[in-house]
Amino acid sequence: MSEPSGRYSYEGLDRVIHERARLSVLTSLATHPHGLLFGDLKQLCGLTDGNLSRHLQVLQEAGLVELRKGSARNRPQTVCHLTPSGRRRFLDYLAVLEQVVRDAAQTADETPAILDPARS
Amino acid sequence: MSEPSGRYSYEGLDRVIHERARLSVLTSLATHPHGLLFGDLKQLCGLTDGNLSRHLQVLQEAGLVELRKGSARNRPQTVCHLTPSGRRRFLDYLAVLEQVVRDAAQTADETPAILDPARS
Repeated sequence: MSEPSGRYSYEGLDRVIHERARLSVLTSLATHPHGLLFGDLKQLCGLTDGNLSRHLQVLQEAGLVELRKGSARNRPQTVCHLTPSGRRRFLDYLAVLEQVVRDAAQTADETPAILDPARS
Repeated sequence: MSEPSGRYSYEGLDRVIHERARLSVLTSLATHPHGLLFGDLKQLCGLTDGNLSRHLQVLQEAGLVELRKGSARNRPQTVCHLTPSGRRRFLDYLAVLEQVVRDAAQTADETPAILDPARS
């Protein structure tokens, strides 16, 4: 083996961020720097109230996300934001995700299209 | 909200593939089309014998990976391969992963470098 030990270990794939629903929440928040209302976030991520609440709690405890109570249209509202450190950790995570995609793209290129039904 | 419901739900992030150790195993196998010996795979992924065995069993039961018993240098060896359908499912998964990276890259571009310590 000429490749270094741990070449594909991807230790930077932080488990708090990598879980699918939380990745969905964090990408939604990262693309909306002014924050998102709970209801809009729920819709963008395709999650139930209970699931979104549970994942937001994990993200809040990890310091990635903050929730602010406010009101709009005379109704109480919760606005969800990335914290500055949450944003940095998400960008660090993304750098590793890009590495996975680059490593794997290498493979895809090596497969002749004629042998690969996914690309024909 | 002008964005469609479920815009960031990433349902194609198959849970069998997305788990970090299994993503590591599958990327290793995808980049080694002739297969990998158990010991080499373990080293590339930075996993213990027990962990690798457990994840290979999940991947084998899901039809993504196959194990062939053989021998080399007079010792029994296990060679691990992606199955053809495993390869297709991995490529489908990667397409969704690329979408996550593209969605999030949008964010990174919107952040002035001066406000973003991760990029300075």
